Amino acid sequence: MSVRQSQYDVGLDKTPANYVPLTPLSFITRSAAVFPNHLCAVYEGRSFTWEQTYRRCRQFASYLAQNGIGEGDTVAAMLPNVPAMNELHFAVPMTGAVLNALNIRLDAPSIAFQLDHGGAKIILVDPEFSGVIAEALQQMTRPKPLVIDVDDTAYSSGKRIGEIEYEAALAQGDANFAPHMPADEWDAIALSYTSGTTGNPKGVVTHHRGAYLNAVSNILAGNLGQHPVYLWTLPMFHCNGWCFPWTIAAAAGVNVCLRKVDPAKIFELIAKHGVTHMCGAPIVYNTMINAPGAPKGKREKPVCGLIAGAAPPVAVIEGAESIGIRLTHVYGLTEVYGPASVCAEQPGWDDLTVAERAHMKRRQGVPYPLEEAVTVLDPQTMREVPRDGETIGEVMFRGNIVMKGYLKNEKATREAFAGGWFHTGDLGVLDEHGYVIIKDRSKDIIISGGENISSVEVEDVLYRHPAVLFAAVVAKPDAKWGEVPCAFLELKDGATATEAEIIAYCKSHMSGFKTPKAVVFGPIPKTSTGKIQKFLLRNQVESAKAISA
Amino acid sequence: MSVRQSQYDVGLDKTPANYVPLTPLSFITRSAAVFPNHLCAVYEGRSFTWEQTYRRCRQFASYLAQNGIGEGDTVAAMLPNVPAMNELHFAVPMTGAVLNALNIRLDAPSIAFQLDHGGAKIILVDPEFSGVIAEALQQMTRPKPLVIDVDDTAYSSGKRIGEIEYEAALAQGDANFAPHMPADEWDAIALSYTSGTTGNPKGVVTHHRGAYLNAVSNILAGNLGQHPVYLWTLPMFHCNGWCFPWTIAAAAGVNVCLRKVDPAKIFELIAKHGVTHMCGAPIVYNTMINAPGAPKGKREKPVCGLIAGAAPPVAVIEGAESIGIRLTHVYGLTEVYGPASVCAEQPGWDDLTVAERAHMKRRQGVPYPLEEAVTVLDPQTMREVPRDGETIGEVMFRGNIVMKGYLKNEKATREAFAGGWFHTGDLGVLDEHGYVIIKDRSKDIIISGGENISSVEVEDVLYRHPAVLFAAVVAKPDAKWGEVPCAFLELKDGATATEAEIIAYCKSHMSGFKTPKAVVFGPIPKTSTGKIQKFLLRNQVESAKAISA
Repeated sequence: MSVRQSQYDVGLDKTPANYVPLTPLSFITRSAAVFPNHLCAVYEGRSFTWEQTYRRCRQFASYLAQNGIGEGDTVAAMLPNVPAMNELHFAVPMTGAVLNALNIRLDAPSIAFQLDHGGAKIILVDPEFSGVIAEALQQMTRPKPLVIDVDDTAYSSGKRIGEIEYEAALAQGDANFAPHMPADEWDAIALSYTSGTTGNPKGVVTHHRGAYLNAVSNILAGNLGQHPVYLWTLPMFHCNGWCFPWTIAAAAGVNVCLRKVDPAKIFELIAKHGVTHMCGAPIVYNTMINAPGAPKGKREKPVCGLIAGAAPPVAVIEGAESIGIRLTHVYGLTEVYGPASVCAEQPGWDDLTVAERAHMKRRQGVPYPLEEAVTVLDPQTMREVPRDGETIGEVMFRGNIVMKGYLKNEKATREAFAGGWFHTGDLGVLDEHGYVIIKDRSKDIIISGGENISSVEVEDVLYRHPAVLFAAVVAKPDAKWGEVPCAFLELKDGATATEAEIIAYCKSHMSGFKTPKAVVFGPIPKTSTGKIQKFLLRNQVESAKAISA
Repeated sequence: MSVRQSQYDVGLDKTPANYVPLTPLSFITRSAAVFPNHLCAVYEGRSFTWEQTYRRCRQFASYLAQNGIGEGDTVAAMLPNVPAMNELHFAVPMTGAVLNALNIRLDAPSIAFQLDHGGAKIILVDPEFSGVIAEALQQMTRPKPLVIDVDDTAYSSGKRIGEIEYEAALAQGDANFAPHMPADEWDAIALSYTSGTTGNPKGVVTHHRGAYLNAVSNILAGNLGQHPVYLWTLPMFHCNGWCFPWTIAAAAGVNVCLRKVDPAKIFELIAKHGVTHMCGAPIVYNTMINAPGAPKGKREKPVCGLIAGAAPPVAVIEGAESIGIRLTHVYGLTEVYGPASVCAEQPGWDDLTVAERAHMKRRQGVPYPLEEAVTVLDPQTMREVPRDGETIGEVMFRGNIVMKGYLKNEKATREAFAGGWFHTGDLGVLDEHGYVIIKDRSKDIIISGGENISSVEVEDVLYRHPAVLFAAVVAKPDAKWGEVPCAFLELKDGATATEAEIIAYCKSHMSGFKTPKAVVFGPIPKTSTGKIQKFLLRNQVESAKAISA
């Protein structure tokens, strides 16, 4: 690169007229100004326009500022998908502070750790979680945050533990509060802890620039257009709802809020509000597909569903189409703001059978429209693996939709970004079209007789068995083979199957060495976001071994 | 703002993994990788996929680099909307150089000025313009650029003046050339001279960041979705075709190239390729509406047309709908990358009569989705004017879709950005919804007896007269009133009208003081982009005065 100064570098500097740091706060500012009377959020008989929401956000930001919240401070929240949770995605950054959304399934010690580590000065709490939060506050070692209750008329149990209720706090704020726009688009906007299965979770810090770009990427990848009607089946605490609070603001859409994934309620809201888009893990769609009241058949305008969180089984993609939901598979992690890759559709897919199409769609795909790159690299050489669908490497991302790093953890940050790429820890291959296909998490690969077995591949066969609702395959230690696959199955209501039957079924659909050598029936433990908790299953296998030994 | 360092500023710096300068080069990289076999460009029997186009761009970039082109250099081009012109929007920045697209209607002295001032090292020329370019090269005072002919089998006249032809040059390049991605997103990408009516034109320098963001803004504002089929009725030399070469790359669409605005050809291409989107000045749509072969009636899927370049007369908006084109009015200037505001549609407009809807649509509107602000300010106080539809101020923009500045003209840059806003020189008002409505260019306002008369307002009445094809109103010096409006009219084929008739028509549709006091019939001079050249009409009025005096 030349170091001479060109004529294009002279007298052409940034000024307030031609440079504004990218921030999703610009989206709500614009939508409130341009579409003031459009609906922004609906929930249980309440509704707010964009102008009202913008006003409420400024009011609550003003309240936060009055209570000492400013640049670089942390505000935590443990809330379901209620309007207040959406508002916090704007109100907190409007003060220059960082939003730490807490997973509602966390236990008290985990919450205490996050509050201590992130240094939250304020926490907002839904009455359903006030018990565990109260316990966590007791366990904290650092100064306790101010607690604000967020009441919900739709939830009658639980009790208040805070010093003030959200609406009362908001009412104390000034609706003319001037939002603090970031001086630098690299400033932090959110802090989200990964659900580490060993040791303490890591605090993923994201910034205004990435939130802005991923919000727009969601519009492009999901074909949201203008004024989508978005149903909140995905938790907002999960990677900031994949940036969708900011996406819906950019598209001036409607947030159809939802306290809890309940199929009957979901079908009711889709019909009532004309829902156009939704997101979720396979479990959300699976629950809908298998719900007794699921409205079978195509819709006049299908709901566009983004699906991520685990490789979607073919059965889920097929099943969704049978109830009028057209799925787009996206993939990502907290470290890349939620999804940052998409299984981009190609011409001709509409002419495929649903099974063929589902097979195409279950690949993790290609970079999000505004993400620079996602691919599979050999972590040793950092070279791309051949596009042979077989050579396994590590899935890695690079670009503006990658976190700032892990909070107060420079070592983990350095390791995650080694070689100029973000290392996901997921193992995958590239197909002939350059689409990424995930084979497994590093720790989920089963090595049997020296051969790698993708647990995902075995699970996919199991999901095709008519009795199977959920399937998970983990390694079981074996004296002869080192490891062998062990299948855990949760069956559909009223369905039955035997171990021998399942093993026979697998044998007829896959290589012998991949066939599970043991089958365990019963409920499968899942996280709140629908990820199957394989570490618990592995523990179970380990204990069984200990007992039998 | 606090100056303390927060925990979010420590150990969370930019790395190659999480920071990539924004550049539209990322769009073509992605589209070529993800949609390699999708059509990118069609023109006169030739067509190129995205993979082929990406390859051709790298080849030509390699040729440019072999010939000494690198960071901060300038490459000029005087080409119609052929595939090569699209390719240059990628090939030139791939070397780190800056594209200086020349208006094909320029005369030799203007071209010589731009080549000298911009310092072009290479110029690409279409045979139709080789004569004027040869002349301009003679008139240059600085070293002459290398000349490359871009042949076109669809244009048989003209002669070659270059040292090599484009395809031959391209063939010398290496298809594996590694594009030079900008080290800084603030680096220049294009140089476009304004069509100054007095003195020398100013060189507007734009950057990769702005080009990237406006390319995406076009998708959002125009609802392009994925894979639009875009017809090139708008000149690519005009503000880089409003950034559409980059927009179509971001959306992996098809560029339907078009050498020259010819209604029969346009209708043929729309039908043949299933055109979904197009752009143009009112003159383009007006020409189509009034073409003998215009296919009347609604289309099954209307073509979405963006219209800008002059306030669109109601008759044009109505007329376009009558031939199946649904217009969205956008507004901007070279300094804001083409359009950077949009007359955003509101619910209920579909229920209006076409005349009512046209009236709503002719406002300049609100900021583009990714532009920070456009409004009307009092240039003295820099305060926003009241939303009364009456108080005139200057239209100003602020945000990331504003140029770096004027090349080698720090004074003009400083003035343009005074007070932290880009001053457009257009005069306008805000309506009750905050939509900008342009009343006139500063210099086009007519001041009659101390009253301001908007020439646009008078022209709009004239356009509603059934005989009128084009109308332009300028100030005529008047002993009593200072100035009075003088109308220039170009009538439709076969239509007739008299001065008295026109004046009577105006009197019945506007205040007496706004009524033109003189009417001149005949062809009206226009620029290549369809802007009426009012300064020529003003000169004509001046000469007439001189003669009559």
